[in-house]
Parts: sequence; structure tokens; C-alpha cells
Amino acid sequence: MHLEKLTIVGAGLIGGSLGMAAKERGLVKQVTALVRRAESVEQCQALGIADNITLKATEAITGADLIVLCTPVASMFDLVNSLLPSLKVGAVVTDVGSTKRQLVNDLTPLIAKTGAHFVGSHPMAGSAQTGPSAARSDLFDEAVSVITPGEATDSNALQMIKEFWEALGSQSILMSVEEHDQLVARCSQLPHLLSSALVKRVLDPRHGELQRQLCATGFRDMSRLASGSPVMWRDIVSSNREAILTAIEEFSGELDQLRELITTDSKGEIESWLSEAKRARDEWRSPDID
Amino acid sequence: MHLEKLTIVGAGLIGGSLGMAAKERGLVKQVTALVRRAESVEQCQALGIADNITLKATEAITGADLIVLCTPVASMFDLVNSLLPSLKVGAVVTDVGSTKRQLVNDLTPLIAKTGAHFVGSHPMAGSAQTGPSAARSDLFDEAVSVITPGEATDSNALQMIKEFWEALGSQSILMSVEEHDQLVARCSQLPHLLSSALVKRVLDPRHGELQRQLCATGFRDMSRLASGSPVMWRDIVSSNREAILTAIEEFSGELDQLRELITTDSKGEIESWLSEAKRARDEWRSPDID
Repeated sequence: MHLEKLTIVGAGLIGGSLGMAAKERGLVKQVTALVRRAESVEQCQALGIADNITLKATEAITGADLIVLCTPVASMFDLVNSLLPSLKVGAVVTDVGSTKRQLVNDLTPLIAKTGAHFVGSHPMAGSAQTGPSAARSDLFDEAVSVITPGEATDSNALQMIKEFWEALGSQSILMSVEEHDQLVARCSQLPHLLSSALVKRVLDPRHGELQRQLCATGFRDMSRLASGSPVMWRDIVSSNREAILTAIEEFSGELDQLRELITTDSKGEIESWLSEAKRARDEWRSPDID
Repeated sequence: MHLEKLTIVGAGLIGGSLGMAAKERGLVKQVTALVRRAESVEQCQALGIADNITLKATEAITGADLIVLCTPVASMFDLVNSLLPSLKVGAVVTDVGSTKRQLVNDLTPLIAKTGAHFVGSHPMAGSAQTGPSAARSDLFDEAVSVITPGEATDSNALQMIKEFWEALGSQSILMSVEEHDQLVARCSQLPHLLSSALVKRVLDPRHGELQRQLCATGFRDMSRLASGSPVMWRDIVSSNREAILTAIEEFSGELDQLRELITTDSKGEIESWLSEAKRARDEWRSPDID
């Protein structure tokens, strides 16, 4: 990477981690962060998230070679619209949004109008914690970063984005927006919604205080995702409804099958059902890594 | 606790941890472990799980004041039957089984015949790992241990079991077998089965290699329980079918409600749904404890 100026728009967990990682790895001469609230400036300075932290869009975007949008998906269109006048010709814009079809379809032509290029990204890294204080320079280490080029994507811009994620330590994978949205509905959005649904059922106040006290380590693990930001997840869900509905339907079908096995007390089949899951999980990740 | 001889029957994660914890805290003069396989004797000796590790039931049970059954639930009835001749009058037997109704109903009269007493227990402590090598002397520290007395339970025996779990560092809670089984179906067995169902759906080979690669930290947490022992969980499920079916049904109802909100793209209601879950989870456990 030989960039002069990288601008991070929004310095939460992902934006903050990006700034830290780019600085630590010396990827660019200058990292600028554009933040929305005055109190964020000082906080981000103290955390060392960027060389220059500003509330002014013009200052942040002017002259930037690479701009990474790290704000919530729902606000990105309006935000980019307001940044357009400052974008330099040839600048490359990417994002870190969890769903891609809608965003890529909206932003690609909008940004192309100015002579800059948009390429959609989604680094598969996160944490139950949010905000710049949770940022870590190693967040993308060994993570997978999905890039979703389309027919209109500029090939040099694509190459830059690929190098960017790899320079941050992650493995880049290219796929279509449709495939991306279908795959993350299953492995990211479905688990999140199951976690929330589980918490709602188990900790329903009607079940009383003893129910809470009996929740142990298994419940702790399975409920962790439910602590995520409701606003952020509301928008993620809304931007990927069709794929999420399909994933929930698939899951419900699996539960119905299990229910049938339990109803008929089919011990052998229940064991096979559990064994298949164990085998798949252990193969996905070496069992001693937990 | 002023006991001469404590016998642990079965030295896996729970039995091994019990032996270690009782020794470390000096609860009894002598800890004996009864194991099934010759190779376990040496392994348990090396791990310091008990003072005396034996394959002989008569040696293990004779003279024991307190016997803790730490073998799988499905085999407990036959096992106890074989131990009956060695039980001394007044000995107290407890167990660590995850479901209680069936076991307590079976074992209470069986053990009472010999002049010994049975009290059902369930320490809410565990780990994805199994076997004596996963044992830890602090496994019961700050855990909740449920005790399930019934009308036939001897009050001195109940008092001893209460003191035993508390001496190991856990908080003891008394409830009926029915209430216990209903509560653990919801907060322990349901999460486990959801984890397995999620793994089966997400890692279905038909979804391809990219699906596996996109599974990140959220999936890792939500799939951890699926690595548990299929045989052990088959038996747990089989011994608590009714309560588990109810818990799955409740959960499916919650998913159906969510599906409806997503179908109609009710953003405000989706946010409320997610917020309720977040609030309940954060109240259950201070959010910074993760």
C-alpha cells in the first residue's frame, strides 16, 4: 500500500480498529477520522485511532485516496451524498456494512458520478462491545474480509481494496452481493436473532427468579450476541429481509425435525442428529480451540 | 463438613472436579474414586483427583459416608443396583444428573431399602470439554447447585448435601424435581439443541466452502455447545422429553413472531424486540463481564 491519506468515516469498534491497525502497520502516511460528536474527538485522540480527528467532512474527505465508511448501514446513503463534493477524482470508497446488495446498488452509481470509485467490503470481525473504546489494532488479524465487486466495479479500485484488507492481516474473498447476503444471513444474522429469541424466552419475567439463577455457562455463551446494539441490528435485518427470512425458515425446519425425533423418543436418531452437528462443528474448528 | 470417606462414582469432568475440590478444601479425610476403565486409574492418580482410585465397587462404597454419582444419567439405575450391597446404613447418596424427575423417582425408594438415603442434586457447572483431564478444583466456585428434595427425603441427609455443595463454593437452591426439569429444559437443554440445530443448518455441506469461511466469532460462540457429547445429550434429552418439547415450542413461537415482524418490515417493533432481549441479557449479567 502506498497511500497518502486514508479517511475513516465513523470511529466505532470497526472504524477505530481500522485506524489503529493502519497506523500500526504503517499502511498510509496519514490516517484521518471523521466523527460526528465533539466528545468523540478527544476520546479518539486519547485512544490513538487516527493522526487527525475532525468533525468537518470537507477537511476529512479532501485529498483522501481511500475512504472507509464505518457508520451504520442505514445512514450511509445520506452521508455519502453529503461527502460527494469533497471526493477527489480517482478516490476509492469502501464500507464495512454487514449487508451488501442494497448498499452496493445505491452507492456505486452515486459515487461514480464524481469520478471516484466504490467497492463494497465486509470484514467478518466484531465483538459484543461497541464504540471506539473497544477498538483493537488486531481485530482484522486472520479475519475474513469479503469484497463484493459487480460489473460496474473499477478493476484498479478493486485491487486497492483487496490489498488494503490483506495488508491489515485479513484474508480477502470475492463474491457477488447476492451470495454474500445469503451467506451472512445464515452464519451471522441468524445466530444473532436466535440469541435474542433465546434470551426473550428464557428470561421472560413470568418464569421467575429461579430461572435466572439456573442460567449457567451454556446460556451465557448462547446469549452473548443478544447484547448487540438494537438499532444497528434493526437496520441490518431490514436491509437483508429476504435472505434472513429464508435462513429462519431453514432453521425452523431443522427444529421441527428435532421435535419429531423427541416426540417419538427416537434415541438412535437423536444421537445421530447430535453427532452430525458435533462432527461439523469440530471440523469447522479444531475442538481444542474451543 | 466432618466426613471420613467421600466416594465419587465416575471421574469425568464433574466427578474429577468434585474430587479435586473436596481434597483442596479439606472437606473429608479420604476421597475415593470408583472408575470403570483400568487406564483411568493411572490418569486420575496423575491428576490428583482422589486419594484412592479403584475399579472395585465394594472397596469404593464400603464405609463411605457420602457417595456422589457422576456417571451418565441413563446408566445410574443399574449402577446403583450393583452398589446396594456395599452401602452402609445411614450413608447418603447424591448425584449430579442434569434431569431429575425420573432419576429421583427411581433412586429414592431403591436406596431407602438399604437404610441409606438419596437426595438429588444438579450443580449448574460444566464445560464444552469432557473427561478427567478437563477437571478443575474451582468448577463449582460461584456456581448454583440445585437440590431436589421430595416428601420422602431424609432431613439430615438433605442438610448434609446442602452443606456439601456450599462447602465446595456453590450456592445451593432447593426446588421440586418438576420445577427443576422445566427450568433446565429452558436454560440448558434448549440452548444446547439450538446450538446443534444452528450448526447443522449453517455448515450443511450444500452451502459450500465459502459459507464455512464466513463463519466468525458470533457463530463460534453460538456453536460451541454443539461440540458436547452426543451420547450424554441423547440421554439427557430422552429423560426430559416433555419439558424440552415445551421449551422448543415456546422458542418456535418467539421465532414465528419475529418472522412476522421481518415480513412486514416493522422496524420499530423489531428494534423493541431486540432491545427487550438486550435489556434482559444485560440485567442478567453485567455487560462488561461479557
